[in-house]
Amino acid sequence: MKIITIGREFGSGGRELGKRLADILNCEYYDREIITAISESQGLNEEFVESVLENGAYHNFPITYSHSFGAVTIMQHPHTSVFIEQRKVIEKIAQQGKDCVIVGRNADIILKNYKPFNIFVCAEEKWKVKRCIERASADEQLSEKQIIKNMRRIDKNRAMLRSFITDSKWGDPKAYDLTVNSSGWEIKKLCPIIAEFIKYSLDNKTAE
Amino acid sequence: MKIITIGREFGSGGRELGKRLADILNCEYYDREIITAISESQGLNEEFVESVLENGAYHNFPITYSHSFGAVTIMQHPHTSVFIEQRKVIEKIAQQGKDCVIVGRNADIILKNYKPFNIFVCAEEKWKVKRCIERASADEQLSEKQIIKNMRRIDKNRAMLRSFITDSKWGDPKAYDLTVNSSGWEIKKLCPIIAEFIKYSLDNKTAE
Repeated sequence: MKIITIGREFGSGGRELGKRLADILNCEYYDREIITAISESQGLNEEFVESVLENGAYHNFPITYSHSFGAVTIMQHPHTSVFIEQRKVIEKIAQQGKDCVIVGRNADIILKNYKPFNIFVCAEEKWKVKRCIERASADEQLSEKQIIKNMRRIDKNRAMLRSFITDSKWGDPKAYDLTVNSSGWEIKKLCPIIAEFIKYSLDNKTAE
Repeated sequence: MKIITIGREFGSGGRELGKRLADILNCEYYDREIITAISESQGLNEEFVESVLENGAYHNFPITYSHSFGAVTIMQHPHTSVFIEQRKVIEKIAQQGKDCVIVGRNADIILKNYKPFNIFVCAEEKWKVKRCIERASADEQLSEKQIIKNMRRIDKNRAMLRSFITDSKWGDPKAYDLTVNSSGWEIKKLCPIIAEFIKYSLDNKTAE
């Protein structure tokens, strides 16, 4: 069984990469299903769950903190239950034993015992802005300034959420098998060679 | 013409990767030749040139600083001439118009107008230590503690030297096309798929 996790900077095309990799590698892709499972088990609205997960560290920030007791980090957060449930859902996915791709959600850390293949996708800001403008629908056109502001806020939040559960820094290439700069790439064209890299790695990497 | 540059953490196997990539891709590999060219033009001993380049920012540190006048960064260093000559040698290599691999030396920045394919190789510390121990000759056996100390000093120096000529941080994945974590890999086995990635990128990347 192989699990592929994809961390990504906002606007780098990581989600599209994940979907396309799942297609090429013929494995499950988990994204919206995770939100649905959390909202069902917690009796919460899906949009609310999504908002907590994406903006978690910023909602009610003054009462967000992490505290360490020896090796155990306990996250105190007004919506801690949402994050705990997310972890359970991700663990359940892995337990099913199917090959799968999971984008974001610190799945690389949560599932580290399964030795996933971990990818991080980054890009220069101008390329991320370009991608955001291209994929925006007619009713969500933002100025470049607003896009950059959102992008930085979301990525800062992702880095902060990661810091609650691990010492490994969000985006630090030593925490991933492969870090790809998607600047200048069409994700559709980038995918096949990443899929090749993953397959090659599974067959040829000497040790974990 | 394609130029491939390889930045690397000490002990990550970047130099071996560079040599092997040059073989696979059938192109020139520049390493020792750069030292020789600098020492000849400057009338300096090769070992001295090598030591300045590898330890530059630490030799006589108190008089090492960088200063910005607008967009131009001027490096003031007791051995500035060695670095200036290195830049010239690297530019000459590129001007020859042959496909080549250059390891280290901030060649990605010096040759950015040639749009090189830039790789960075990193690895977890335990793997880098393992590699250093394996490749050490009988008369240069160091303790693990000494290896880690050297490793950190050399990498800190590389980061510092880079900061003299660019705002792009040493090892920041956005500054490279591909960042590979060599932990657990035999470099010999890792090379072919990286060579594939480079070739694929030259044929399929949409824009620079």
